[in-house]
Amino acid sequence: MGEIPFPRGVRDLMPNEAIARNEVMEKIEQVYRSFGFLPIYTPYMESLDVLKAKEVIGEENKLIFELKDQNNGLRYDHTVGLARYISMHNSMPLPFKRYAIGTVWRMDEPQRMRLREFAQADVDILGGDAIKANAEAIAAVCKAMDELGLDYTIRLNSRQTVDVFMERIGLKEQTQKIMRIMDKADKIGREGVSKELAAMGLKEDSIDQISAFVGVSGTNEERIKAINGMAGSEDACAEISGTLELLQKYAIKGKCIVDPSIVRGIDYYTGIVMETIDNTGVAGSTSICSGGRYDNLVSRFSESKLPGVGFSIGIDRVLDVMKFGDSKKRTYAKVFVAYIKEQNYNYALDVAMKLRSAGVEVDLNQASRNISNQLSYASSLGIPYSIVVGPKEQDAGKVKLRNMDTGDESEISVDEAIASISK
Amino acid sequence: MGEIPFPRGVRDLMPNEAIARNEVMEKIEQVYRSFGFLPIYTPYMESLDVLKAKEVIGEENKLIFELKDQNNGLRYDHTVGLARYISMHNSMPLPFKRYAIGTVWRMDEPQRMRLREFAQADVDILGGDAIKANAEAIAAVCKAMDELGLDYTIRLNSRQTVDVFMERIGLKEQTQKIMRIMDKADKIGREGVSKELAAMGLKEDSIDQISAFVGVSGTNEERIKAINGMAGSEDACAEISGTLELLQKYAIKGKCIVDPSIVRGIDYYTGIVMETIDNTGVAGSTSICSGGRYDNLVSRFSESKLPGVGFSIGIDRVLDVMKFGDSKKRTYAKVFVAYIKEQNYNYALDVAMKLRSAGVEVDLNQASRNISNQLSYASSLGIPYSIVVGPKEQDAGKVKLRNMDTGDESEISVDEAIASISK
Repeated sequence: MGEIPFPRGVRDLMPNEAIARNEVMEKIEQVYRSFGFLPIYTPYMESLDVLKAKEVIGEENKLIFELKDQNNGLRYDHTVGLARYISMHNSMPLPFKRYAIGTVWRMDEPQRMRLREFAQADVDILGGDAIKANAEAIAAVCKAMDELGLDYTIRLNSRQTVDVFMERIGLKEQTQKIMRIMDKADKIGREGVSKELAAMGLKEDSIDQISAFVGVSGTNEERIKAINGMAGSEDACAEISGTLELLQKYAIKGKCIVDPSIVRGIDYYTGIVMETIDNTGVAGSTSICSGGRYDNLVSRFSESKLPGVGFSIGIDRVLDVMKFGDSKKRTYAKVFVAYIKEQNYNYALDVAMKLRSAGVEVDLNQASRNISNQLSYASSLGIPYSIVVGPKEQDAGKVKLRNMDTGDESEISVDEAIASISK
Repeated sequence: MGEIPFPRGVRDLMPNEAIARNEVMEKIEQVYRSFGFLPIYTPYMESLDVLKAKEVIGEENKLIFELKDQNNGLRYDHTVGLARYISMHNSMPLPFKRYAIGTVWRMDEPQRMRLREFAQADVDILGGDAIKANAEAIAAVCKAMDELGLDYTIRLNSRQTVDVFMERIGLKEQTQKIMRIMDKADKIGREGVSKELAAMGLKEDSIDQISAFVGVSGTNEERIKAINGMAGSEDACAEISGTLELLQKYAIKGKCIVDPSIVRGIDYYTGIVMETIDNTGVAGSTSICSGGRYDNLVSRFSESKLPGVGFSIGIDRVLDVMKFGDSKKRTYAKVFVAYIKEQNYNYALDVAMKLRSAGVEVDLNQASRNISNQLSYASSLGIPYSIVVGPKEQDAGKVKLRNMDTGDESEISVDEAIASISK
């Protein structure tokens, strides 16, 4: 059938990549569970009315994968489904802390670090004290990133300070667009930024004011003070500094920097917002973990107004940062059972099942080939041990255990082999 | 916004259900890994050309969820993606044993035990000796069902015997339809079956022959002999009996019955086919695990002809059979940290983080409420232990540990609390 058609913006993972992905997801999940987050399950598909709920996601709703013949689409994040869920099942004890790890879709133009199908690992806290919840949720994603050995910087801001400031200088409507340009300073330089802002029709005076706002420097305390001076947004600044203060108690490894250029694309955020940059540079300026406070999201679906905060680790980006394609582990099997003659197969199977019952992961040869080809197969998968059984071993009720790295062999009982492999 | 729109045929899971689901998936995955199956990742969406590849799935292709503005659809099983994957990345050492656990979609009419979005847990073996691979793959799904405590009966057949037999009596084209009717004997009785077959235009003679074929009785050996007598399909009968013989070595708990009425809906099967019935009756006659041998699937996408065999556990059906909604565990947290006064929060957080570092799952109060409401919350989630810290505990550097079941309390160090909770 010629070239095999394959969707744009998705990817296949080889066994070593899939194992690395499993390990990343398992580590993150363990951390989320250790923080007392509960799992819920919301479907991969939601009604378009929910996904496109007015003012929920703003411009991003053009990125929704819509299904044919159904008024449904694929979820673009885990948060909107959560808000819908809470509105439909409102008997949860509060605060409601949930985690969600799974695939979401955006019909974005595929590029480096931007797939159309990718996994996110979220924590959310609905209800509770805002600052405590902010810190707990940020700490959970950071602890997960620590567990993965990532080196990252947290860029923290409040959407509210930006909104108040932009309103003050009469540019509220264009906040998103302006901030996106400001955020490019690293790439296109200050001059480039000014040029693009001028192209939008901004006056020099406004450009200077914005530059001063996003250009605050010094310690986080100094930055917050400067931001407050320009925006006059006491509450929002108190949220930032309170969150930062608590975060120190969690002893997370990443560095936190107050950065007024952070606004996040999705429109439902109302308070603190965060983006996390990989310090190794692999992800460039693309955020590997982000989120923020959304205090009105649930109220779009129900009477209740339930403030929330949530952050999301971009699993596929993290995998790329960790260069998961180089990962060596290609199988979970710890031992490969080979047999010399066809009539030894039943004995080999007995041995394999005994090992499996003891919790050892076992692959068993099941193809007609000589012993050398059997061991080549085991070796190509990087299975650390092989067991060979032939007429001699079968008669003696023993096995020949071979360490595939060192080549050491010993003729022992199955129980001894289990002990040897398990240690 | 009035009633909240929700897609048909999908479901939300409450935390206790989501935890039960996680446990089921984790147990299955552990068994698959213990058999040496490798994970790969194939996307949730595939090209429609792949999903609808001629003769691959037959009638079921009307059940594909198609995406708008894309020539793509959502996967309806894990097998077609595997065949496409193998054709694109043909460097796998053979036999290639892979597992896949995840969501698939079918735009079927939703009903009991038939969702539109549901999870399947598959094993597949490409290459290798057919009978050994059949038994290994069936054993893997059965061991997983054993691990879940399911009580099941395996109904095994060969698609080939049926095809040969139907060809013999000149009804090959209608095999699928006829077998579906035959399969309803339990529900509508022999007379009902005859009536429906007559309505299809079948002659009494043919109906009698088919009745005799699917009505074979006795031991499995006797059944195979009778089937061979009617179909004259030596090879296919040898595949069934060889597979059954090996399966005994695996000591699986389910009973295997040779049942010529099993044909499976999907057209890509060529050899043995299997359906698994839940003996508790919850799932009725709906299969909870099924699959079979497909020797031509890969060749539809590439030059190579790679025989394969695969089986799939229907996770959502299994969850329903296990009555997972009754599951009591609502959180992973083992301890809830409460604090008496606001100024004890930092100490409570320290305690929580120490416990978490020691691998204990901890929820921490983060809402303004008195100690009694804090403990009610912990109790409503069924968290087994609480730790209460107040000025007294903070000054002494201790915690008050409470067993939420017995009410026993003790004032101890954090290390002692960790030891107590972990044992």
